[in-house]
Amino acid sequence: MEKPMTNGMKGTWLPIQASRSARNTINPIRRIVDRMKISPNPAKEMISLSIGDPTHYGNMLPPVEALEAIVEAVQLPTCHGYAPSFGTLDARRAVAQFWSRSNYIVKPEDVILTSGCSHALEMCVDGLADSGDNILLPRPGFSLYVTLCQSLGIEPRFYDLLPNEQWRADLSHLESLIDDRTRAVLINNPSNPCGAVYSEEHLRQLINICERNHLPIIADEIYADMIFSGNQFHFLGMLSENVPVLSCGGISKRFICPGWRVGWIVIHDRHNLFKDTIKPGLMDLSSRILGPNSVTQAAMSHILSETPDSYYDDILQQLQNNAEFVYNSLLEAPGLRPTMPQGAMYMLIAINPSAFLDIQDDKEFFTKLLCEESISCLPASVFGIDNFIRIVLTTPMEKTEEACQRILEFCHRHAKTIA
Amino acid sequence: MEKPMTNGMKGTWLPIQASRSARNTINPIRRIVDRMKISPNPAKEMISLSIGDPTHYGNMLPPVEALEAIVEAVQLPTCHGYAPSFGTLDARRAVAQFWSRSNYIVKPEDVILTSGCSHALEMCVDGLADSGDNILLPRPGFSLYVTLCQSLGIEPRFYDLLPNEQWRADLSHLESLIDDRTRAVLINNPSNPCGAVYSEEHLRQLINICERNHLPIIADEIYADMIFSGNQFHFLGMLSENVPVLSCGGISKRFICPGWRVGWIVIHDRHNLFKDTIKPGLMDLSSRILGPNSVTQAAMSHILSETPDSYYDDILQQLQNNAEFVYNSLLEAPGLRPTMPQGAMYMLIAINPSAFLDIQDDKEFFTKLLCEESISCLPASVFGIDNFIRIVLTTPMEKTEEACQRILEFCHRHAKTIA
Repeated sequence: MEKPMTNGMKGTWLPIQASRSARNTINPIRRIVDRMKISPNPAKEMISLSIGDPTHYGNMLPPVEALEAIVEAVQLPTCHGYAPSFGTLDARRAVAQFWSRSNYIVKPEDVILTSGCSHALEMCVDGLADSGDNILLPRPGFSLYVTLCQSLGIEPRFYDLLPNEQWRADLSHLESLIDDRTRAVLINNPSNPCGAVYSEEHLRQLINICERNHLPIIADEIYADMIFSGNQFHFLGMLSENVPVLSCGGISKRFICPGWRVGWIVIHDRHNLFKDTIKPGLMDLSSRILGPNSVTQAAMSHILSETPDSYYDDILQQLQNNAEFVYNSLLEAPGLRPTMPQGAMYMLIAINPSAFLDIQDDKEFFTKLLCEESISCLPASVFGIDNFIRIVLTTPMEKTEEACQRILEFCHRHAKTIA
Repeated sequence: MEKPMTNGMKGTWLPIQASRSARNTINPIRRIVDRMKISPNPAKEMISLSIGDPTHYGNMLPPVEALEAIVEAVQLPTCHGYAPSFGTLDARRAVAQFWSRSNYIVKPEDVILTSGCSHALEMCVDGLADSGDNILLPRPGFSLYVTLCQSLGIEPRFYDLLPNEQWRADLSHLESLIDDRTRAVLINNPSNPCGAVYSEEHLRQLINICERNHLPIIADEIYADMIFSGNQFHFLGMLSENVPVLSCGGISKRFICPGWRVGWIVIHDRHNLFKDTIKPGLMDLSSRILGPNSVTQAAMSHILSETPDSYYDDILQQLQNNAEFVYNSLLEAPGLRPTMPQGAMYMLIAINPSAFLDIQDDKEFFTKLLCEESISCLPASVFGIDNFIRIVLTTPMEKTEEACQRILEFCHRHAKTIA
């Protein structure tokens, strides 16, 4: 802390305290990872498997159609002014059409554009719960959920995901957490960090619990449609007959442009439970900072309708190839147990500390792997679960191969018995 | 309100209540203006003098250099990923250089990029005050300040601006409002809706009050440098020796691109009163939704350094021509008393209801002017002061002339005695 400053004339200033919300806005990734003062091995080229930014290595980039759409939009004299705070009709219509299905039509008036999916999640949490209320969150789960809840004085209450059952939710644990201050259940599907894709049956089980307890759902569906072969993705809002669902999404993962900050909330509310309350509330909340960049909004319709299927097929193929390669390679590593993901961009790998001579937990695995092998991953403690590490599956295959090789050598070197 | 929905199996849902913050996020412009069910005169072409969006008529648009910078940036493979939540170093450096003066250097590490100036203001209010605290706001003042405070449970407490003294702050009134829950004073210069540009002397008076009372300043300086000839603009942070100042700004008005949503907070804190508290607090708050669009961030350096002075000279000349034309025209209008603005994009015009046969207040002036003359302005009640209207000065001159002509006819038609 700074020492108080004295100035003759006007007395002493003490350092000015930040507000409760600022003090409680804690990013666990930064808190845990940034405080470890460690450096990679200078003899080995760094390979980053830690950040969920698919653009990092250049093998996954936005489609050319999206770039063209921006170049075209920026020339329009009409796209530099204020858009409505909840988004232009044109962009909201594009999102509605993109997610409509033959048996389920999304209406533009049920779409609110946001400054990225993080902003969509922030608005949902802020719009549904007051300080002192609680929201049920998955554990392990994306750390932003906790950051947002705590920043707003809302209690994050964690329901377990089951590592041995492809990370589906522990339903009875979830239901046991509900009390009269519970305001919503957050469900992330496909999921970060687990890479789980829930079956229709499991999603219906979750919806039933919410229906019994009259709880709306916040669905983090930013990885919608990001699934590997053999899996199917279902929007919670399309399955739910009676439970209102706020579906949060965006273009960042689907069109590989996380920096563009375009997200949305799609309101699924067949019985108008949100019509006069949550919906206008969210629209009012959007007026605090206004929506995403107007040029990108003007480009949305082109981006969503003109990008060929082959673009996304290639992205999915790269993710799946990486997942399979990593899974098969690390199955042989002493002390590790990878779970084959069903979708999204991540794999969780269980660490068995008792198999290692000198690795106590996931954090030590993370630090030693970085120091010795120049490979960064994330200790899953930042997601609320111990003794797993998360790696991202967006690297070019040659980096993936090199990384697996180094991880294998690392595990053998630290293993109690030579495998 | 919707009727509760009944479904046989699972009981009754009541409409789900929005959170306190959603219910308290009230935009007074929408609340007052949108609820007036009025239509323009179909026989007359609409002229909008109500919205502070300079791009509306096409006579003020972003500089070509800015458009080129976006087109170039979007081709870079490196500008689509996540930027740091407080902005890229490159963009923060561009802002720091742009606002540095020969005798005052702004450092990049004191710049936090935000999703527009609204987001900058939101973060400052949220970072400095807790629910139950109060912040002093100018009256009349930009309505977003009230919206943000109320949304966060912070009491907006209003200090008067003096209409007959070029809207300078009533210093003794301001100081009388301070109590032990006051956390900051918000100062808007050049100002919306008044068009005031404060002298160095007046700014020093304001700083002195804050210093005596150990209160930091939130400076809304989005109209920095937007001044008419004969005036000088001073950054509060550059004048202040001892009072920490959070200066909120952006490119929206300076480069006529309000839809792009690029703003910033510049932290002026010579004695490190914010170093371990407010500054990290603001950086943490930025992690809730991450910063502005990455393509625009990549373009910032080019936009800020390559746009020629002539671009902005032309914008200022248009504003000043409009201000002078409107002022001179409406001086003759019965019942009106315009104030010549010193900067920004607005003029406040006092209404004298006793001079009119059938106009009781600013709201009635606004509605009748719209219905009869198809001219939209804003009743200044939305800014906290009665019996003024605000008009924007960004229209092409031929629209300005036509608007003044219609306003003159309107005033003569409703005046008690023929002028």
